[in-house]
Amino acid sequence: MNDIGRMAKPSPTHSGNPALVSIGETVRSVRTKQGLSQEGLALAAELDRSYMGGIERGEHNLTVINLIRVSGALGLTPSELLKKSRL
Amino acid sequence: MNDIGRMAKPSPTHSGNPALVSIGETVRSVRTKQGLSQEGLALAAELDRSYMGGIERGEHNLTVINLIRVSGALGLTPSELLKKSRL
Repeated sequence: MNDIGRMAKPSPTHSGNPALVSIGETVRSVRTKQGLSQEGLALAAELDRSYMGGIERGEHNLTVINLIRVSGALGLTPSELLKKSRL
Repeated sequence: MNDIGRMAKPSPTHSGNPALVSIGETVRSVRTKQGLSQEGLALAAELDRSYMGGIERGEHNLTVINLIRVSGALGLTPSELLKKSRL
């Protein structure tokens, strides 16, 4: 499991940033359309469930590697996930 | 200036990751085609020059916010930058 999960506190600097909120909303909408639970997505992305919850709330300034993990777990490329997030 | 620059050491875990190397190569090729120096791009992206050098070498697992900064400084959207990087 990705170790970042143990400290899934919101990013003090970037939590709520519009781009991060938009990515989080996209992740949630694609996930729920696929009938996947947050826990299921976290498992598939090898990320901690509480960290995944924070991503969906736009609290984490996720890295490229985690963006690749999350998009892959949703069956998207990272560029597709960003495009769906209007980025 | 983004404070991450002061500690522009390569990511111990992800330095050299193929996705990060591909992003770095894309940043370098788009930058040089625009006749922009690494320093000029770092300034435009509000990132430290040595951190920018590390991005181009695929040494940093950059965050979404820094990806937005770098792509914006190149006149690209983040999804365009990732797509050019075959991601």
